[in-house]
Amino acid sequence: MNIVIHGCGGRMGRILTEMIFEENEHKVLCGIDIECIGDLPYPIYRDFTFVTKKVDVVIDFSNPTAIKGLLGWCILHGTPVVIATTGLGPEEHRIIQEAAKQIPIFQSANMSLGINALCKAISLISSILCGEFETGIFEIHHKNKKDSPSGTAYLLEDSLKNCTAKITALRIGAVPGEHTVYFAGSDEVLTLTHTAYSRKIFARGALRAASFIINSKPGLYDMNDLNDL
Amino acid sequence: MNIVIHGCGGRMGRILTEMIFEENEHKVLCGIDIECIGDLPYPIYRDFTFVTKKVDVVIDFSNPTAIKGLLGWCILHGTPVVIATTGLGPEEHRIIQEAAKQIPIFQSANMSLGINALCKAISLISSILCGEFETGIFEIHHKNKKDSPSGTAYLLEDSLKNCTAKITALRIGAVPGEHTVYFAGSDEVLTLTHTAYSRKIFARGALRAASFIINSKPGLYDMNDLNDL
Amino acid sequence: MNIVIHGCGGRMGRILTEMIFEENEHKVLCGIDIECIGDLPYPIYRDFTFVTKKVDVVIDFSNPTAIKGLLGWCILHGTPVVIATTGLGPEEHRIIQEAAKQIPIFQSANMSLGINALCKAISLISSILCGEFETGIFEIHHKNKKDSPSGTAYLLEDSLKNCTAKITALRIGAVPGEHTVYFAGSDEVLTLTHTAYSRKIFARGALRAASFIINSKPGLYDMNDLNDL
Amino acid sequence: MNIVIHGCGGRMGRILTEMIFEENEHKVLCGIDIECIGDLPYPIYRDFTFVTKKVDVVIDFSNPTAIKGLLGWCILHGTPVVIATTGLGPEEHRIIQEAAKQIPIFQSANMSLGINALCKAISLISSILCGEFETGIFEIHHKNKKDSPSGTAYLLEDSLKNCTAKITALRIGAVPGEHTVYFAGSDEVLTLTHTAYSRKIFARGALRAASFIINSKPGLYDMNDLNDL
Repeated sequence: MNIVIHGCGGRMGRILTEMIFEENEHKVLCGIDIECIGDLPYPIYRDFTFVTKKVDVVIDFSNPTAIKGLLGWCILHGTPVVIATTGLGPEEHRIIQEAAKQIPIFQSANMSLGINALCKAISLISSILCGEFETGIFEIHHKNKKDSPSGTAYLLEDSLKNCTAKITALRIGAVPGEHTVYFAGSDEVLTLTHTAYSRKIFARGALRAASFIINSKPGLYDMNDLNDL
Repeated sequence: MNIVIHGCGGRMGRILTEMIFEENEHKVLCGIDIECIGDLPYPIYRDFTFVTKKVDVVIDFSNPTAIKGLLGWCILHGTPVVIATTGLGPEEHRIIQEAAKQIPIFQSANMSLGINALCKAISLISSILCGEFETGIFEIHHKNKKDSPSGTAYLLEDSLKNCTAKITALRIGAVPGEHTVYFAGSDEVLTLTHTAYSRKIFARGALRAASFIINSKPGLYDMNDLNDL
Repeated sequence: MNIVIHGCGGRMGRILTEMIFEENEHKVLCGIDIECIGDLPYPIYRDFTFVTKKVDVVIDFSNPTAIKGLLGWCILHGTPVVIATTGLGPEEHRIIQEAAKQIPIFQSANMSLGINALCKAISLISSILCGEFETGIFEIHHKNKKDSPSGTAYLLEDSLKNCTAKITALRIGAVPGEHTVYFAGSDEVLTLTHTAYSRKIFARGALRAASFIINSKPGLYDMNDLNDL
Repeated sequence: MNIVIHGCGGRMGRILTEMIFEENEHKVLCGIDIECIGDLPYPIYRDFTFVTKKVDVVIDFSNPTAIKGLLGWCILHGTPVVIATTGLGPEEHRIIQEAAKQIPIFQSANMSLGINALCKAISLISSILCGEFETGIFEIHHKNKKDSPSGTAYLLEDSLKNCTAKITALRIGAVPGEHTVYFAGSDEVLTLTHTAYSRKIFARGALRAASFIINSKPGLYDMNDLNDL
């Protein structure tokens, strides 16, 4: 794949860059970043106007405010896009849904295989236990994480059937991300925890999503589509 | 229900007794126990020959060696039975399967709702993740537990799809029972833990199973049948 | 010991009652409870005016508003008292300190051996790691718990040296109480968790404290004094 | 410091190399590795005979069989050494103690700050709780780890006062290392877990130890000496 990395200068953009160059399967045509830092092994542009080559897919690890401009360019060029940026609000989700009528878009608040298996598991467990059991969510991230609770915590909450969960969050140290879902019954508790050891899992998931989306019809896709493969 | 408790003098027999008398919904006709301790609020007999009244269901919390005699009597009288005894071997399972051709039998190595939801969850997760992830099981119980690994650990192992798990066990203090299943991938780990706070969950599950089995046809039933209700 | 249980009709009062009668070492002279429920195996009075016998120690599992009246009576009769009621505010702590000039008072937000060993451990760990590591506290209790965060969470926070901790709390199901302290460094995390399997640990601790306080001089004592024995 | 990395081609040797070059504070004179891989940014020799420059300190991440040769060279040249290799047996420990009479040696089965704070904490907790509580150790590592139980698990066991612990170990996936110590009492459990998110913590600790050892007199030092600074 010929990839453009949107938000190439941020933490996730750099991890994705490193992974692509290590695996040496795909090519990064260029990166887009408002701050042209220049220490990455491909051309970096301030915006999409400088992109002239044929792009197979854009992978986005930027920030919510940049989504609108990104989608405008992708629609104009019919380019599939993977949106891995977190902290999206209702307005961004509306824009994404609108754009997905014209181009294939893959969007998830969490690109890891583990979190997505966890979503399916808690959907199943809650359908069995809720009623008799109560549910709660707890998540820990590094102190620089901007959104709290995390988008992943909301993704987990959305997976619950027949019940709601209170979400609590802690921001300390350099923890890449730990999410726990509790099901508390009378005299027994189920505790399901996902521990991220490295942000590489999000880069790996974004690449997997890119391989999927380049062959898809216009529409909005998420991890559920990926796992069915 | 008119219940006979098989193994009434053991730890679980006593917890079940207390629960039935507290809830005051069902009646214990008598208890069977090789050691007639006499401090329980119903007649206790050394064996079934003394049982003359109409029994709706036998709940068994005895030990593996007593299963054969129990089933002989139940078949003779067409009495449904809930087998909650743990540590059964292949021979006991064979006898149970044979008896289930004639009477309704409910058997599970773990009667709790939580463990059974966990079994279904890990079945689902392993079908998604195994291949890329590796699996392990760890369990802790009080030091008086005779079987190690626990029957519940094997129940969890049997639920895994597409993979096997190494089981490790620790026996310390008075821990009622904690089971953990790990799914370890590249840079991420899913950890699913069931914590029993009290053995009451096994008594409650056995009563629930009894309510189910008294209206069932001959056959062998387990928690999967119960959850479908 | 001849014991008066203050708050005998509440959950902890009943657990303490059961433990004392099971162990059969000490005697409950009477219980004090504003709601005279009458199903306990000793006389229950609405207040202390009915207590006429010689009392060795009062064990208090009532509520913060009842502390003042309790201490007034104890001072008048020179009776040692164990205050195990949780959710005390600054005003109650002031009253307790004042009363401790005249009578021996044992007070702790958590009577369990485990929590108190944990307090000492995190005091030690924080003195080594804080500076390079960050700290957070998370606690789970049953949904009927009135104070949030728990008094125990504050007790843990007070034990930290050279750092402060953000406290987060979840209230679900019937969880007796779980407290976790995190120390998050660069690429490593220490997690220390205390799990209460039953409220009996608080009753047991209160009895242990009572045995200690009946032989003490006037003053304010806590778990640190107990562990030094 | 002018450093020689012994075992530079292994996983830890490479992580240490990357850290030293990123921090750019110290210099790697050369690496020693039986397999001369040649893709590291400094000269690599098969053994010490090729080392001619003045060495401030050797940092060893090789394997137990290479310890004897390493120490022979260090004694000859009076060079301080940090031994971070794991899986040492009684014979290696004897050789190290002997060598420490002539040169300063820093040796620990685990170089991380967190594990060493944990050792001190469980030493304290066990001195309070053992007798009434029972202890167990559980550790998880990636499946390529050669020694099982880990040296760190033994380090933790050695820290316990007044009690012993059964050690259980699981080897799955790519888990960098998780160690848990349990203290199980009646109705309560203390669980202390150290999670390594990256092997960088061992490289960082080895560098810290190197800074300490270059100014020390001959003798055998460990993490306890470091923490006292």
